[in-house]
Amino acid sequence: MEYRWSYQIQLRDTDAAGVVYFANFLTICHAAYEASLSAAEIDLRWLISGSEVALPIVHASGDFKQPLYCGDLVQVFLSPSQINESEFQIDYRLCLMDGKVAGRVLTKHVAIGVIDRQRTALPYQVQTWLVG
Amino acid sequence: MEYRWSYQIQLRDTDAAGVVYFANFLTICHAAYEASLSAAEIDLRWLISGSEVALPIVHASGDFKQPLYCGDLVQVFLSPSQINESEFQIDYRLCLMDGKVAGRVLTKHVAIGVIDRQRTALPYQVQTWLVG
Amino acid sequence: MEYRWSYQIQLRDTDAAGVVYFANFLTICHAAYEASLSAAEIDLRWLISGSEVALPIVHASGDFKQPLYCGDLVQVFLSPSQINESEFQIDYRLCLMDGKVAGRVLTKHVAIGVIDRQRTALPYQVQTWLVG
Amino acid sequence: MEYRWSYQIQLRDTDAAGVVYFANFLTICHAAYEASLSAAEIDLRWLISGSEVALPIVHASGDFKQPLYCGDLVQVFLSPSQINESEFQIDYRLCLMDGKVAGRVLTKHVAIGVIDRQRTALPYQVQTWLVG
Repeated sequence: MEYRWSYQIQLRDTDAAGVVYFANFLTICHAAYEASLSAAEIDLRWLISGSEVALPIVHASGDFKQPLYCGDLVQVFLSPSQINESEFQIDYRLCLMDGKVAGRVLTKHVAIGVIDRQRTALPYQVQTWLVG
Repeated sequence: MEYRWSYQIQLRDTDAAGVVYFANFLTICHAAYEASLSAAEIDLRWLISGSEVALPIVHASGDFKQPLYCGDLVQVFLSPSQINESEFQIDYRLCLMDGKVAGRVLTKHVAIGVIDRQRTALPYQVQTWLVG
Repeated sequence: MEYRWSYQIQLRDTDAAGVVYFANFLTICHAAYEASLSAAEIDLRWLISGSEVALPIVHASGDFKQPLYCGDLVQVFLSPSQINESEFQIDYRLCLMDGKVAGRVLTKHVAIGVIDRQRTALPYQVQTWLVG
Repeated sequence: MEYRWSYQIQLRDTDAAGVVYFANFLTICHAAYEASLSAAEIDLRWLISGSEVALPIVHASGDFKQPLYCGDLVQVFLSPSQINESEFQIDYRLCLMDGKVAGRVLTKHVAIGVIDRQRTALPYQVQTWLVG
């Protein structure tokens, strides 16, 4: 499954170098992930702080190829895939409207129990979302 | 003129108290202002860093009435008004989908020359936007 | 009581206009408030998410007088005062090293029960901090 | 050379999951890099927006091993190394006060001309900083 999210770069995303602050490439991709969960009718508030299972990001990486400016329209293409019972990853491509890739991002998520902090199975809502 | 912008609260807007971080009420309102300028075909990149006139915010205030949670859908209603040749203000209402007001924000903007930092007339694009 | 906190403006505080993003004047002042609580040996993690009483900010305002640049050294002067049994406010002055005031900020905080969201007395640790 | 920077986790670094937002591990490491440049008497404002050479981050990655809470004291250990004439990287370890590693981060920086966006030599101030 591939999910697409459109976004216009906001002033808060940028820094005094005039372009998007590097860590905000990741933040924008995470917002696309949240939009994708929401589109699958997963309750974000519950997932973030109400569920017995947390889904912390244990790894992230990004390649930043083009500067992004305030007002730029971008599309984030998001490809999640399950790694094993308790882990999944998401590959993102951040594209300008002419199709040029501005950045690539990867995040790895692990399901853990909120109380015992031990690995556990991904919530079935997330498993369903993963298969699209 | 009144402009309306829809937004879904993102994880980055929240803090460990579980709700939107107070200063992000202002940030979300500013994003609505940017969307409104964009809808009026004003080039944000030019306005922020390419124009000879800067529009710094010299005053802001906010009343925060309801907590906002990750995933909440909000509408920002934005009412700009010109104060004088070089100043305008924007009143914002941040509403939940049931119409309940979650917050009110006010920002005051002054046009200054980028070089001399002296007050100057608002750019005509902004004057046009102000009259809707 | 007046508390002073030194801070160097970070890139993340700025935006593409080249200076500190307006809402981050408030964020920087809040960081000074956190440092002040910490200096009084109040456990921030407990106060934010472990206590039975929450202290949401219900009002904030700021006057932004001077642009702040990445790398600028500032001092935040913080003057808290109790309003009534359940409320206090903090006045902040953000000063450059030459003493010039770059901004003034005000925040109002109300103690509420985490469960019932009703006003309650300020935690005694906070009352003690308020009298310095 | 290894540089060490102490930092107390601020509320703005956290999200509604109760801990530091993943992208802010990178942001905190970048703040340590800025502090290191400042300690070497490099003018951050000049480096960010006044120099003829920009130093965009073209790659970043992070492994997040321990949750960080508001108020946590951390130390960031920063090890920069030059890759070639126009590139350097920084390895960061984010440690709790008991020495436990909470996260590891890597950033890669490339020197480019501000006008032509072509690779160029690292500014000599940065080269000097790299050799400690």
